[in-house]
This record gives sequence, structure tokens and C-alpha cells, in this order.
Amino acid sequence: MAPNGVDPNEPRSVRAEEVYGPYPKNCMTPWKNSRDEGREGDAVDVENLKEIAAQNFMELPCDYRDKGTPDDWIPRDGRMVRLTGRHPFNAEPLLPELTKHNPKNPFLLPANLHIIRNHGTVPKLDWETHTLSIEGPLVSDPVKLSMDELTTTYPTTEFPVTISCCGNRRKEMNMIKQTIGFNWGSAAAGTNVYKGVLLRDLLKSVGVTAESVADMTGSFVEFIGNEDLGNKCGGPGPFPDEPWAEKVKYATSIPLAKCLDPADEVMVAFQANGQRLHPDRGYPIRLVIPGYIGGRMIKWLTRIRVIPHESHSCYHYWDNKYLPPQVTAEVAAKDGWWYKQDYIINELSLNSFINKPAHNATIPLAANIDKTMVVSGYAHSGGGRKVTRVEVSSDLGVTWNLADIDRKEQPNPYGKYWCWVWWYYDLPVAQMGKELWVRAWDTSNSPQAERPVWTLMGQSSNHVFRVLVHTETSPDTGKVVYRFEHPTQAGQQSGGWATRLAGKVKSAGYGEINLASYVD
Amino acid sequence: MAPNGVDPNEPRSVRAEEVYGPYPKNCMTPWKNSRDEGREGDAVDVENLKEIAAQNFMELPCDYRDKGTPDDWIPRDGRMVRLTGRHPFNAEPLLPELTKHNPKNPFLLPANLHIIRNHGTVPKLDWETHTLSIEGPLVSDPVKLSMDELTTTYPTTEFPVTISCCGNRRKEMNMIKQTIGFNWGSAAAGTNVYKGVLLRDLLKSVGVTAESVADMTGSFVEFIGNEDLGNKCGGPGPFPDEPWAEKVKYATSIPLAKCLDPADEVMVAFQANGQRLHPDRGYPIRLVIPGYIGGRMIKWLTRIRVIPHESHSCYHYWDNKYLPPQVTAEVAAKDGWWYKQDYIINELSLNSFINKPAHNATIPLAANIDKTMVVSGYAHSGGGRKVTRVEVSSDLGVTWNLADIDRKEQPNPYGKYWCWVWWYYDLPVAQMGKELWVRAWDTSNSPQAERPVWTLMGQSSNHVFRVLVHTETSPDTGKVVYRFEHPTQAGQQSGGWATRLAGKVKSAGYGEINLASYVD
Repeated sequence: MAPNGVDPNEPRSVRAEEVYGPYPKNCMTPWKNSRDEGREGDAVDVENLKEIAAQNFMELPCDYRDKGTPDDWIPRDGRMVRLTGRHPFNAEPLLPELTKHNPKNPFLLPANLHIIRNHGTVPKLDWETHTLSIEGPLVSDPVKLSMDELTTTYPTTEFPVTISCCGNRRKEMNMIKQTIGFNWGSAAAGTNVYKGVLLRDLLKSVGVTAESVADMTGSFVEFIGNEDLGNKCGGPGPFPDEPWAEKVKYATSIPLAKCLDPADEVMVAFQANGQRLHPDRGYPIRLVIPGYIGGRMIKWLTRIRVIPHESHSCYHYWDNKYLPPQVTAEVAAKDGWWYKQDYIINELSLNSFINKPAHNATIPLAANIDKTMVVSGYAHSGGGRKVTRVEVSSDLGVTWNLADIDRKEQPNPYGKYWCWVWWYYDLPVAQMGKELWVRAWDTSNSPQAERPVWTLMGQSSNHVFRVLVHTETSPDTGKVVYRFEHPTQAGQQSGGWATRLAGKVKSAGYGEINLASYVD
Repeated sequence: MAPNGVDPNEPRSVRAEEVYGPYPKNCMTPWKNSRDEGREGDAVDVENLKEIAAQNFMELPCDYRDKGTPDDWIPRDGRMVRLTGRHPFNAEPLLPELTKHNPKNPFLLPANLHIIRNHGTVPKLDWETHTLSIEGPLVSDPVKLSMDELTTTYPTTEFPVTISCCGNRRKEMNMIKQTIGFNWGSAAAGTNVYKGVLLRDLLKSVGVTAESVADMTGSFVEFIGNEDLGNKCGGPGPFPDEPWAEKVKYATSIPLAKCLDPADEVMVAFQANGQRLHPDRGYPIRLVIPGYIGGRMIKWLTRIRVIPHESHSCYHYWDNKYLPPQVTAEVAAKDGWWYKQDYIINELSLNSFINKPAHNATIPLAANIDKTMVVSGYAHSGGGRKVTRVEVSSDLGVTWNLADIDRKEQPNPYGKYWCWVWWYYDLPVAQMGKELWVRAWDTSNSPQAERPVWTLMGQSSNHVFRVLVHTETSPDTGKVVYRFEHPTQAGQQSGGWATRLAGKVKSAGYGEINLASYVD
């Protein structure tokens, strides 16, 4: 029997394994077989480990780099690029890893290759003891649910969602001028099929509906995780009830309307690609907000509160803001920019990426000049908007050629799209220019901007993606080749034309950035 | 008593006269007192006419220019710029007219100054005899409603909506390369408060809900007007049931989900700014689709059909498409581009406009160089997205300055915004550059593009709006002044820097358009 207020017959779209499957299984590759080969570590039997990963990835051994950290109980894929040292764990795969597992259909990424953004130590939670409470001043009938109650008494839903950190491509921003964030590359995004309970069903069961709140636009749903994190704020903010303890929980909020709108599908998820969530990714439950940035999708979800204001957590305010480029860290703190509502980043931005040719890939000219080569990559939008067009330019944006879009996603009943698309363009090699550019369009009928806009947090970095083309003689073969150079390589890895911009860009991303003049 | 299936207690946001009022009354100005002064026409008593207009604008005399046309029974404001000769009537006000009626608060435009897009002769309809039928294969209980039934038995709603033709700024496109559309300037937009009945209430009353249709994403609502128009197609299209008569009704369709989503507020409207609709604007009823382009908001609405496919009307397919720039009229027809779903324009695009300084306005340098001057205009987005930022640049996009946004609109309960904002920036005159640029941002966190993208229909023209600044000696005063030149003037009016681009632009809007090199 469904909980009070929940209509089990209401249509809940399930777009799952029969549509997108079979799901890619976890195929964890320990560090020994990654680019770290040669470093010290335990010897491993890779084939055996892959078998274990497919059955229960929690039985895999830990990465040697996690030894001595509070996370040394967590099996991790050795291919993930670590962006913030050993701990906390923030990682993305190399860009080519997004397709290697299934070059012809990279739509669903194996869960173990999915971007991870951890602010601190990963909470060690049990399915049997973890609870989710739904409470707050606008909740008439608060509840505390066990995981079994959550997952067996409520109707479930299942569909794919692309989750991306809005810091994706931040390293490009850091090369223009240092932001206050670390170096995400271009693969801080991934698509998994999530299974869970619709938040609006949970809210209905505690009496929260469009009719129950007096002021819907003034009502928010706050989500609180389980970590104990350092307080980001140096002193009291504008709210008397802001938590000022040394340690706080990660928390944020989104508008109640986003949670109640049947066109949206905010979900409390307990599975990705048919398996339990990985501890780094929120086990046992996390929030999934289709069309929003990853930063709002609280992991290790513990409390949901319906409140008559935005969350007062410092993590809600002092992060995920798209401030104007002239706002420095000092100005932001002094003039209250972190609290200005219009600069919040909720929706994922329209963005596109070139995966092939890969960074430093080459093709010999003589053997290919009469042929075409495949340029391909991914693109996504936010807010449910469909990516309607992807275009490639090999002449610095003078002409744009339509790429083929491989649209695997089926929209939800309200026509919303939550996932990346993969695109492919056959470029006649004879039309190779000095750069390869890609841009996407969505149903709002605006393309990505050409010039980058620098911001203090380096987020929503979504200008046209540019790959530089070098014509040079291969030291290996003595033949003339095109060599392709991506803007950056994630984290501390060297390489990428944007790294040569550092310190040379006029106006710090306000606009005057003639990239071409710096990269040749 | 509310009709079957309609819950009169469901929240229907009313944001009307107590919030935005008093509404601006119609203040029709006959041609005699417009820029046409001096031309032949009837002598008129302006003060008397204004009084009549405020009471019942239908009692005003007709414009002499409509004599001999089928529209010669319709009173029209003499200030409207006629874009397509005498007939059919397509018109927008001069850009400064958007604020003249209330310079301090131009949020609501007097209805008589609102853009008009007529495809043919205006139907002469009576409230007493006009009916609206709701029918179609997905309707279990079709009805035919009189105007009194529609407006008195259903709950009503009332809120402001900006309606814009997506052809706004098309003249800029025509100066790059001729499109297949006529010369809209920069004032093809206006905001009125509309009163009407929510379409989802009408649909519920005939049994159409999210549960009643088997395939929501494959279901559409078709709207059919009352005009008799020439068939746009030269021959049979892909649909066996496409109407191929010489004369057809204007019709289009939108997704059923857009009509059922409570976050949207699609409305059958019968009042604008508290008065009956003007015949040019759909009397007695028209569709209002907040966040969509004007081209979908059928006037003189007669039939609503719920169907398992998009409308098969030629007006649905052969118009309001955002085709890639390389698609010419010949290619579009030959390769079926009019029928490609991804190129439909539904949502209004993010856009921004400079109203002040006006075209050809001047300011003396000596008297103003130590002062600031107000740069101001309007901006809007589509799809319910809030305009979060408007920026002005006086250095060709190198640095951008935040304008103040005067946000009069209250969002709907789901946080959606349907209206333009007016913005103001105090520019230090000493920082005047060669051009003044404006761009807007919305909650998708992408700015308007800098370079125009030419398309066959010249619609969704929404690149950065640029006003040229000339430094010259005034022939009147002998003093050095800045003179401001807008890109275009609507219709056949001369003037505007973009008119000097004609025939000179490389690649027809594909991208390489260094406007600065043409306009000095």
C-alpha cells in the first residue's frame, strides 16, 4: 500500500534497462593497470578484480594512495585523475575514458568512471541503520524513513541523468586567471541510469503540495548530507540561525516548485546502473536533480527540510555562484555577493566537448588528405532543454557544419531531456584549419558564446570548445602530421594550449581574449 | 459551478491590477498627430479621440490608410510603423514609443501600441456569435463554447505576458543577407496584462489529462484561427491529411505537456490591460502562451484540437523555423528542412535592446564629459527563465558593466517569469567608446552571442545589440557631439548602421562578420 497522499497509479515514467540496457557494469581497473603503472603498490590480478567488480565492487581492494586517509576502506578506480591530492577525493576520468568502454555507444558511463566531488571524508553508512527524515516548518507530518521503508513502500522510478560538476572546464578559467577552485578538466560529467523515489511523492506523503504552502515562490526544500565538514565562513553571515559550528553538514536548497512540478523528476536515488551506489557517490542514498548542477545533488542524504527561505548553510551560499568577472574574492565577501540570489547556479549550462581527436593524437597528412576523419564528443544542456544542434567549425567560427547527433535518450512525458548526447562529424581532412571548434544549441535557440567569461568560482565555463591543430613533422616517422592539442588536461597534468595563456590574458576574462594570438 | 473536472480551488495565480495597475489605457493617436503629419486625411480632434479611446476604442475613426482595404472598419493607432504596405497590417511602434507613455515605468505598454502581426484580413467577429470548440481524436467529451460560457463558467486568471514576434530585429538579418521575411525593427515586443481561462482547465473539462493520453510526448494541442489565408505550400507535403485548399486557416500546435504543466500558464485570453481585445489582436479571444514566440499565439481562436501528432497546417511548418545558415530557400524545400522537428522555434530567445540613447540622439561633449548619461532599454528571455543580468559595454565587449534591473514582474507560483524587464545603466560619458553594446543573461547562465547567426527566416535574431557612437560637429550648434546610431529603423525607414552592411558581409552570417570594420 502506498503511503498517504501518494497515488500509485499516477504516471511515473520508467525509462530503464529495457530501453537503455544492458547497463554497463562496474569494470574497475586498479591503479596498477592505469597510467600510474610503475609506481609502488600491491600486485593485482586484473581479470579476477573485474569479475569481483561486476558482482560487488565493495569487495575490491583499496587504492594504495588512499592508505592512511579516512577513506582507506573505499575501492576506487585507478584510472580516475585525482584533482586535489590524496584527500578529499575529487576525480574525473581522462577524456578518452568516457568512450573506451563502449566506443559505439558511450551513452551510459560505467558508474566507477563517473566524476566524484567530495568535500571531505566519505561517511561510512549502513543500509540497515541509515535513515532519511523529512521535516521542517512547512511539513505537517514529519517522518523518518529507514532505507527499506523508503525503497519498498514508495513507488520507484528509474531513468538516465547526466550529472556534471558545474566546475567542468574550470582549468581553462584558471589559465586565464586563477579562480578559487581546482582544476577540473573536460570530463567532469557522466550519465548513469538512476533508480529511486520521486521527491514529490515523498513530499506528498508528509502533506506538502502546491496547495499546502501559502507562498510557493518563497518556499524551498533543503537537503542535508552526512559529512562533517569545515565551516566555509569566517564569521557570522546575514542569518541569525546560520550554523556557525566549526564542523557543519553539506547542505543546499532548491525551490519547492522544482520539486513539485510533474515535468521535473527530482529523485532520491539508491541505485546507479542497476547497482547500489558507490560510497563516493552517496551510498546508500543521494539526491538526483535532473537538469541541475551536481553541486545541488546532496550525497549521503540524511535530512530533507521544507522551509520558508533558502538554506542558510554556508555551502549553499559560498559556492556555485556565477559572479560577474569584476567581482574578486575580496569584493564578493565585502559587498555580500555570495548572498545575491540572481547569481546562483542551479541549471547546468549548455556545453559541448571534443573527445576525438584526443589530446596529442596525430594523423599523417599524406595518407589522409583525401579522406575524412571523425570529430566527435559530447554535449548537454540543463533545465530539461533538448540539445537540438551541434556544429563543428574548422575555420575559427566563420562557417559551422552540422554534426550528427546520436540521441539515445527518450524524453520524459513532459518532453524534458536530462542527458548528454554524443555527436559525430566527418571532417574532410583537406578542410582542416588551425583549430577545431564545437558549439551546441538547445531549444532556447541560442548557441554557446565564443569568448570565455571568467568568474571567481570558474564555474559554468561553457564557451566554444577549441582544439588547436599543429602541422608538424612526427619525430617518430619523419612524416608531416596534424597534431591536436586540447585546451587543458585535468588536474596537475601538463599539456594543453590554454596553459600557455597563463598570465598573458588581458582583462582577466572580461572579454578581450584573442586566444588565437597566444596559442600559435 | 465549475465545469466537470475543473477544481475551482486549485491555485491559479492572479497577478493583476492590484499589483501592476492602474493599467495604461488605450491612448490612440490618429495618424494626423503622428509622424505622418502633413499627409492628406480627415481632420481630427485629438483630445476628444483620447477620451473615446479610453472608453471604447472601437468607436474611434479609422486610419485613412486603411480605406479601400478589407480592414477599413478597424481603428488603429497612427503611430504604428507599417511594415508591409497598407495590407495586411503588420506594425510595430517606434522604439522610443515603448517608454513615452510612462517614462518612469514602461513595464506595461498601452495595448494600442502593441506589435501586430496579421497574415491577412482581420476577421470581423462578434462576442455573441463566436464559439470555441475543443475537439480532436484525443478528446473524449468535445464541447463548443460560447464566449459567455467560456468567460463565466470557468475560473479566470490574469497576469502580464510579454508577447514578441520572433522576427524582432529581423531587419538586422536582412541587412546581412535578405531573408524571406519583412523588416521588423527592435520594438516588435510588448507587455500587457492578459485575462482569460487556463487552457489546462479547458482540457480537463473535456477529459484530457496526463493520465488520459497514452503517449504524452507524442500528443499535441492544435490551435486554429478564423482567417482565410492563402496556402503557403506549392504542393502536397508529407501528410495525407494536410489541407491543400487554396484558402486555409492559420493554425499551429504546441506539445500537450506544455498545456498541462501547472508551471506553465497557457491561456485563452479575452482581455488585455482590463479591456476587450483589439480586433487586430484577436478579438474576441486569442491564445497567450507565456514564454513562447508570438507566432504560436493564435488570434481569433476558433478551434482547439488535441491530436496525436503536430499540426499539419502549412503555417505550422513553413514558418517560425531556426534553420542553419547554409540552408537556403531552395535547399529547405528540396531537403525537407521545414519538417525537421529540431529547428522549430517555440521559446522566445534571450534578447536585449537599447532604447536610450535613441537613434540619432546627440549629446554635446563639453557640457557632459564630466557627467553620466543613462543608457537603458528592455530585455527578455523565454521559457519562463528569469533575466538575471544585463550588461553594457562601451569598449566592444572587453569589459561589461552591470545595469540595474527594474523588475516589476512577480513570478508565478512555480518561479517562472514571462515578461520583459527594463534596465538602466549610468555611463560615465568620459568612458564613451565607439559603440554601446548590451547583452542579457538568464537562469541558464549563458549570455547572448556576439556574432549574429543568419537564418533563412531571420528569426530569433538575438546577438549582442550594438549602437554606434559618432563623434561629430553638430551642424545646428557648431559644438562637438556624440551622435548615436541604432542598427536599423523598422520597415522601410532609412537609417541605421546595419543598412550600410548590405552586400558587404562575408559568409552571409555564418560567422565572419567583423561589423566594426564596416560601420566606421
